[in-house]
Amino acid sequence: MIFAGSHILSVEQFSRADIEQIFAVADSMEPYALRKRVTRVLEGAILGNMFFEPSTRTRVSFGCAFNLLGGEVRETTGFKSSAIAKGESLYDTARVLSGYSDVICMRHPESGSVAEFASASRVPVVNGGDGANEHPSQALLDLYTIQKEVTAKRGSMDGLRIAMIGDLKHGRTVHSLSRLLALYDNIEVVLVSPEELAMPERYVDALRSAGHKVVISSELNHSISRVDIVYSTRIQEERFESKEAADVYRGRFRLNQSIYTEFCQPNTVIMHPLPRDSRSDANELDNDLNQNPNLAIFRQADNGVLVRMALFAMILDVVGQVEAHSREVNWYHRRNGM
Amino acid sequence: MIFAGSHILSVEQFSRADIEQIFAVADSMEPYALRKRVTRVLEGAILGNMFFEPSTRTRVSFGCAFNLLGGEVRETTGFKSSAIAKGESLYDTARVLSGYSDVICMRHPESGSVAEFASASRVPVVNGGDGANEHPSQALLDLYTIQKEVTAKRGSMDGLRIAMIGDLKHGRTVHSLSRLLALYDNIEVVLVSPEELAMPERYVDALRSAGHKVVISSELNHSISRVDIVYSTRIQEERFESKEAADVYRGRFRLNQSIYTEFCQPNTVIMHPLPRDSRSDANELDNDLNQNPNLAIFRQADNGVLVRMALFAMILDVVGQVEAHSREVNWYHRRNGM
Amino acid sequence: MIFAGSHILSVEQFSRADIEQIFAVADSMEPYALRKRVTRVLEGAILGNMFFEPSTRTRVSFGCAFNLLGGEVRETTGFKSSAIAKGESLYDTARVLSGYSDVICMRHPESGSVAEFASASRVPVVNGGDGANEHPSQALLDLYTIQKEVTAKRGSMDGLRIAMIGDLKHGRTVHSLSRLLALYDNIEVVLVSPEELAMPERYVDALRSAGHKVVISSELNHSISRVDIVYSTRIQEERFESKEAADVYRGRFRLNQSIYTEFCQPNTVIMHPLPRDSRSDANELDNDLNQNPNLAIFRQADNGVLVRMALFAMILDVVGQVEAHSREVNWYHRRNGM
Repeated sequence: MIFAGSHILSVEQFSRADIEQIFAVADSMEPYALRKRVTRVLEGAILGNMFFEPSTRTRVSFGCAFNLLGGEVRETTGFKSSAIAKGESLYDTARVLSGYSDVICMRHPESGSVAEFASASRVPVVNGGDGANEHPSQALLDLYTIQKEVTAKRGSMDGLRIAMIGDLKHGRTVHSLSRLLALYDNIEVVLVSPEELAMPERYVDALRSAGHKVVISSELNHSISRVDIVYSTRIQEERFESKEAADVYRGRFRLNQSIYTEFCQPNTVIMHPLPRDSRSDANELDNDLNQNPNLAIFRQADNGVLVRMALFAMILDVVGQVEAHSREVNWYHRRNGM
Repeated sequence: MIFAGSHILSVEQFSRADIEQIFAVADSMEPYALRKRVTRVLEGAILGNMFFEPSTRTRVSFGCAFNLLGGEVRETTGFKSSAIAKGESLYDTARVLSGYSDVICMRHPESGSVAEFASASRVPVVNGGDGANEHPSQALLDLYTIQKEVTAKRGSMDGLRIAMIGDLKHGRTVHSLSRLLALYDNIEVVLVSPEELAMPERYVDALRSAGHKVVISSELNHSISRVDIVYSTRIQEERFESKEAADVYRGRFRLNQSIYTEFCQPNTVIMHPLPRDSRSDANELDNDLNQNPNLAIFRQADNGVLVRMALFAMILDVVGQVEAHSREVNWYHRRNGM
Repeated sequence: MIFAGSHILSVEQFSRADIEQIFAVADSMEPYALRKRVTRVLEGAILGNMFFEPSTRTRVSFGCAFNLLGGEVRETTGFKSSAIAKGESLYDTARVLSGYSDVICMRHPESGSVAEFASASRVPVVNGGDGANEHPSQALLDLYTIQKEVTAKRGSMDGLRIAMIGDLKHGRTVHSLSRLLALYDNIEVVLVSPEELAMPERYVDALRSAGHKVVISSELNHSISRVDIVYSTRIQEERFESKEAADVYRGRFRLNQSIYTEFCQPNTVIMHPLPRDSRSDANELDNDLNQNPNLAIFRQADNGVLVRMALFAMILDVVGQVEAHSREVNWYHRRNGM
């Protein structure tokens, strides 16, 4: 199986074929995530869930994915009291911690730290986010969500049209997602942001040189009228040079139901990496979208569990054994889907 | 089974018949909590133990109860680094987190937050304490303790006489307990507190209008002479308007062995929600009571595990399967009871 | 089995025969720690991993050891929000927490706290470090490492020569290790430290009165020329009275590959309790030693898991059942040794 014993550090390491295989495995995880069946395939295995930067939902999502495969989770949260904070090298930390588990998921505030850690680890390492750099499982779950949402509607990922909205300069998720989208054919990406927060040129160039169409805009409404996917991210106002600069754009990238009704296609899917800031000065996706069946933000989070289960099953090379170690669920479980 | 798939949010949701059923299930959990047998009935199930406010013992008690049924626990502690702190709505948090587990126990500093969370959750939610509002499993374990302690001595809960002592104004535990006691017949409640910290009238009225006797006092010694239960709580001196106001009452609500010997019945049971503050300016229950066999405070804590096991087993509808998934314990375990 | 149901509080409680039995059990744990086999002998048992002082690696090492035996772990980290911080006595904390698990590992900043806790606990307690006092599993893993590293080379622990280097005044690990070494025959201990940070006399006296040779030095290079083991610890410069006093010793106790090559025997084993501070003002063991096969610091950490598995298996009296509850590992695992 691909990725058996491998680190998962960057979206750059995936081919389109790799991704299709990951997504096929993710699909096969659905009965376990939906609690139709239980599998114990990783009973006795240990995940070291090492979060040197807090991120409740990513941490719990990884831990839950490992539990759903039958494994145990040991974890840490925070950095201040860690040995790293006391001057230990990432090399030492990795040598030690990799003696404690079968696979490690690591999050760390510093760009490049997880790769450095992985190079000294004796067990496979999954990058759970290293600063501004990478968060590959987030990119995979975004792409997996896009595929699930649009293939029913349009049959294929190729030819997809997607608008990315908000802070495209600092947004790790849109950078990684654009890398993955470039692996498909004939994608159209509409980049909607204030000029100050535009997508860095290297990502734009990479898309264009792979033959995709990139449209750049600083106006929301007409940018979302022809797309299959609206991928919204938060604009943090402190990113601007001055309050005045921020005020110019205040509210211009916020989507709500009336804008959706007026400008979007009837089936346009709305995504967001979450958390969505519901305070009045943020509110990039209004709560009045909550009843819109095309709001896919919570399905995104659910898909994260499937993708992470797939990664663990592939890294630990148990994909073919999952079903053989499974049985019916014997407790009450939600009947409604994810 | 009652409560299958239900939220447990408030003591108001329980009838006397409900409570009797919970307690019967709790009784049946004793062999597993006492480590005479192991059950794996929830093997593969996941509890999301979401503590957005720290409470080591409540968190560990819930987690332990779920482990004792064979399930796994994913958890979080603290609030500061959570998405909620970054402006995420409880609706969003609930939609996301409820994709990660089969049941959630949530604690949160804000009154009403857990019910709001539960309304958006896709899995059952147990209120682990929401600010000044409710902590229903605490009230149940208190009542369960009272029943276990007194039924041997007096045969029935009906006709029970209980003194509640200390800060009855702010004490969430005494409020909820009084609600549950009101479901029984012919209870006598003696409320002993400084006037400034008296039980709010709505609780007194509810007891009286249900036909129970309520005696109000600000004097300890003679208030505890005829009761079956002394339920003590801490008076935090910062609750008073001035140091002088606090000084008037300093030490007047503290129970020790000599007061117990002089004023209490020989079998009066002593309870406390814990933690008991053993510093000299608090000391509501003196350490010299530790050898008193009627000091039930640690049995209370043990009973918490039984009650929480019962709630989980009922919510996940496995009460009838617990024994079928059980076996002998194969490791050293304490021979002495709980 | 020795230690069944016992607390593990201090190295003082071990005889040489005890230690040899612990190490034999630790040896038998290697297939499980190396992931050649899985054992589920403690399936259903719960470890209360109570860290009232942060220590990521010790906490994770204990938790992992318990998981490797098939048990569950409930844990806490930090002190501030604990009931102890709110005035609860260790007696109360122990009475309550010991109702939640089958065995407790406790770390606490205060010397003597773990023994006080253990005296009120209803389940066995392992001292995971109580301030400046004791950390017995660290001493055992150090000694176990020494035995594994040197017996292949010299056949026996008796006659061992070891240099202890650095802050020998405050170093809990070297104090406890010297206690354990004293149980063997004809040990030579070379103590290398600034005078201000010399080993306290009671440890020196204990070694000498047991018939061992103790050499005291404040010079590194020639002190390490005849020893089997170099045990290095960090000198924290804030331990000195003044910056000038620290400057006198700056860098004089640091070991690197060129000093090793020039002064050590070819097979001298290098140890360190970790974490190793790799910042330039510390750097007690240079990173250029990382490729030296005699650098045993990471094998030390790995051995910690074996020793802790052994302690848990002995305390819970399942040593004889480990293999009967085992099976092959069915997932990818590192082929290289620990």
